[in-house]
Amino acid sequence: MTVEGLEGNGRQNLGDMPPEEFHAVASEVIEWVARYLDQVEDYPVLAQVRPGDIRSRLPLSAPERGESFDRILSDFQKVILPGITHWNHPSFHGYFAVTGSGPGILGEILTAALNVNAMVWRSSPAGTELEQHTLDWIRDLLGLPDAFQGVINDTASHSSLYALAAAREWAFPEAREVGLGGGPRGRIYASTEAHSSIEKAALTLGLGRQGVKKIEADEAYRMRPDALRAAILEDLADGIRPVAVVATVGTTSSSSVDPVDSIADLAKEFGLWLHVDAAYAGSSAIVPELRPHFRGWERSDSVVFNPHKWLFTPVDCSVLYCSRPDVLRGAFSLTPEYLRTQEEGSVRNLMDHGVALGRRFRALKLWFVLRYFGASGIRDRIREHVRLARYFAAHVEANPNWVRTAPVPFSTVTFRYLGEDLTGEEEDALNEELLERVNATGEAFLSHTRLGGRITLRLSIGNLRTREEHLDRTWQILERAAREVDERALVQ
Amino acid sequence: MTVEGLEGNGRQNLGDMPPEEFHAVASEVIEWVARYLDQVEDYPVLAQVRPGDIRSRLPLSAPERGESFDRILSDFQKVILPGITHWNHPSFHGYFAVTGSGPGILGEILTAALNVNAMVWRSSPAGTELEQHTLDWIRDLLGLPDAFQGVINDTASHSSLYALAAAREWAFPEAREVGLGGGPRGRIYASTEAHSSIEKAALTLGLGRQGVKKIEADEAYRMRPDALRAAILEDLADGIRPVAVVATVGTTSSSSVDPVDSIADLAKEFGLWLHVDAAYAGSSAIVPELRPHFRGWERSDSVVFNPHKWLFTPVDCSVLYCSRPDVLRGAFSLTPEYLRTQEEGSVRNLMDHGVALGRRFRALKLWFVLRYFGASGIRDRIREHVRLARYFAAHVEANPNWVRTAPVPFSTVTFRYLGEDLTGEEEDALNEELLERVNATGEAFLSHTRLGGRITLRLSIGNLRTREEHLDRTWQILERAAREVDERALVQ
Repeated sequence: MTVEGLEGNGRQNLGDMPPEEFHAVASEVIEWVARYLDQVEDYPVLAQVRPGDIRSRLPLSAPERGESFDRILSDFQKVILPGITHWNHPSFHGYFAVTGSGPGILGEILTAALNVNAMVWRSSPAGTELEQHTLDWIRDLLGLPDAFQGVINDTASHSSLYALAAAREWAFPEAREVGLGGGPRGRIYASTEAHSSIEKAALTLGLGRQGVKKIEADEAYRMRPDALRAAILEDLADGIRPVAVVATVGTTSSSSVDPVDSIADLAKEFGLWLHVDAAYAGSSAIVPELRPHFRGWERSDSVVFNPHKWLFTPVDCSVLYCSRPDVLRGAFSLTPEYLRTQEEGSVRNLMDHGVALGRRFRALKLWFVLRYFGASGIRDRIREHVRLARYFAAHVEANPNWVRTAPVPFSTVTFRYLGEDLTGEEEDALNEELLERVNATGEAFLSHTRLGGRITLRLSIGNLRTREEHLDRTWQILERAAREVDERALVQ
Repeated sequence: MTVEGLEGNGRQNLGDMPPEEFHAVASEVIEWVARYLDQVEDYPVLAQVRPGDIRSRLPLSAPERGESFDRILSDFQKVILPGITHWNHPSFHGYFAVTGSGPGILGEILTAALNVNAMVWRSSPAGTELEQHTLDWIRDLLGLPDAFQGVINDTASHSSLYALAAAREWAFPEAREVGLGGGPRGRIYASTEAHSSIEKAALTLGLGRQGVKKIEADEAYRMRPDALRAAILEDLADGIRPVAVVATVGTTSSSSVDPVDSIADLAKEFGLWLHVDAAYAGSSAIVPELRPHFRGWERSDSVVFNPHKWLFTPVDCSVLYCSRPDVLRGAFSLTPEYLRTQEEGSVRNLMDHGVALGRRFRALKLWFVLRYFGASGIRDRIREHVRLARYFAAHVEANPNWVRTAPVPFSTVTFRYLGEDLTGEEEDALNEELLERVNATGEAFLSHTRLGGRITLRLSIGNLRTREEHLDRTWQILERAAREVDERALVQ
């Protein structure tokens, strides 16, 4: 990227970068981006740098005088890029693999250019209404009832925090005024496999770590409703106030599916708020044959799912659906004088649905993604990812040295290398080393978790560039790494 | 924007939009953006639509089949743009005026393209280290001590929530484990002029609305330290546990400045966490002659300031500096197995500093802004905005029909039209009508607030395109609207 002859223009007139300079630099940037997206396989997946490497290449203080974009973009390539772990790489399979697709990136460009802040309707009518409209479209695609109203947040951690704040508002209506101090303790129930964001939400909400009771999961990592019932009864006997139960469809470790319908029965019986964490798997409810995994979520009070995970939308974009939006607003609505508007009663002000007051125009990228791919295009792509996950799982299943450690309902495969005559701890160490070796190649990136107390590897598919050949190659790398680690183990 | 001949390409192969299509569409988009930024004055500032107008122009369900970008961009222009309130317009003076400058937009393009999620160091070493590095640069420019460590959040509401969560962790160390239930009540002190996000944080944290005590402000809307002391003593006598005091430098209504140094004395005396809300004015500490407004903030425990407000960075970008980062981490750190990494002990994982786990690579745009304008370029621009605010204030002061309602320490002017022989309520109604008339012209956008119980108009400057001529024009519009409203009042 080289942009010459325009240096300093924007720095003399106290204004912004001049439009002609912006156009020239942006054209170079766009060209680079198009090439990058095409050739992302040329980069190592996991950044091959050590902690501190990037900082050591940066000057100790901000420049006193402005610099040319030529120089800035050159540093971007020389200093920043080597420190990028390429989530765009087709062999990125860590955490949950994602794609910030072309249409989504185009949406981000316009969002950045418009730079609106949709805190109240009037500060961005289109930002407000397109968010509501797009989320209604998606709600219908997911098969959720009309009662569910959506709002976009940055991350699932915040979406779940807001949902559980609404649950607390429901269980402790007095807390909005006087707080939790002096009152009884509250409890949120979630399985041992639930995401850490639930515990973080409980901490934030003043319920403490003990405010979450981890409910036992069965052999397929699904919450056991009988254990949930027992926990609720025990708490009621102890004077602890049940607040909410969190059911997960597609847990982070194994993508297991809690029995939402049975949990909904218990939520109803005991008057608990039911929050469904479908941050990863939610998008797949668009696919009819995957919809059965979600049975019961239509009875929930709130659902979180992240278009930035498996709906091809650039990070950040998390959706919170709530079928009791009045309770959510009750937990958060506070209108200072300076944000009062004439139209207040007749519009939805996005700021009333959570902590964040300001907000980017995130709906634009989501609208672009939905329109460009269309519902059928999205269904086909999610189906393909599920197919690819089963394709990879077949490699694991065909080889007696490896074991698949959980079912594969969606696009995530968990597996583990089996050493010969090793203790569980030795096998754990072997799998950990294997993981580091694979990731050090820069050819593929996997992450890990623990299932049943044992280290297990995870391969997640969500990138639109991933093909069978990438999975074959990753499998080869895993096999080679396993042989190396295993032989060394034998030698010792 | 017209992009032909490429329709449907990306929808047949189950992949992303092909690079050549992306390049063609993005080039059109960039050309549009450059023209838009150049000609933003051609649009009405405040969107001239009624609630529901945008939604009524959108189909009721998502398209089943994908659509061409030609059509999508045409709808963007026809349906979305009329619903945009143009924060980029040089006569946007509502809330706090902002600029998502050219370099910032370029940063956003690359952030969207890279699409990394910097939750732990390894998932984006450059995202993690550039954030820390850029925030160290800014800390030094602001004159804050080295003890302050920064982290980027989306909004000041979240930054303040996290700061006050750390304060709660400090005041109620037991709450992390057992929650607030059963314990004593806690209190946060903030002036009557403090932002509503402080109350929202108290709600969220389980301290309730009563968890915030509003401290009286003086005639210049600054917190009165003697009133603060009295409130703390009263609470201590009542068995309520003081948690934190929030001092504001640049309040939202009048941009008043609390006496941070005196408040810091009290915070020290009573062992309270001191949080400084400088969301708007913080950037101006870069300017030596404005630095005195911030005296005492170097003694605080946390500071929030928003580069997306007055540091020319596209929304969202809020910085939380904390001089006790260990307490902040204590409030939030929770590492699930799947996020444990080999380098854990030797790196900073951004997820440990708040609720959000995932996060965009927001530091890139900030780095671009700092480098392109340079420290001196930023200083000059902030100085110019302060000069322009005084220029506008001079219009108000020169006219006996108007009154300036608060001092102008930064770039925000508050003022009010004085009717003849009107009651306060009648004058309020007149000023409210005046505001709606001015905004309905589409030529300028102002917002309002209440100061001393009375409606007051606000004009804020933060847009790099604003020149004296825009302020002259806005003044003309205000004068004309005032005459019209006043004459009608006389007729009635």
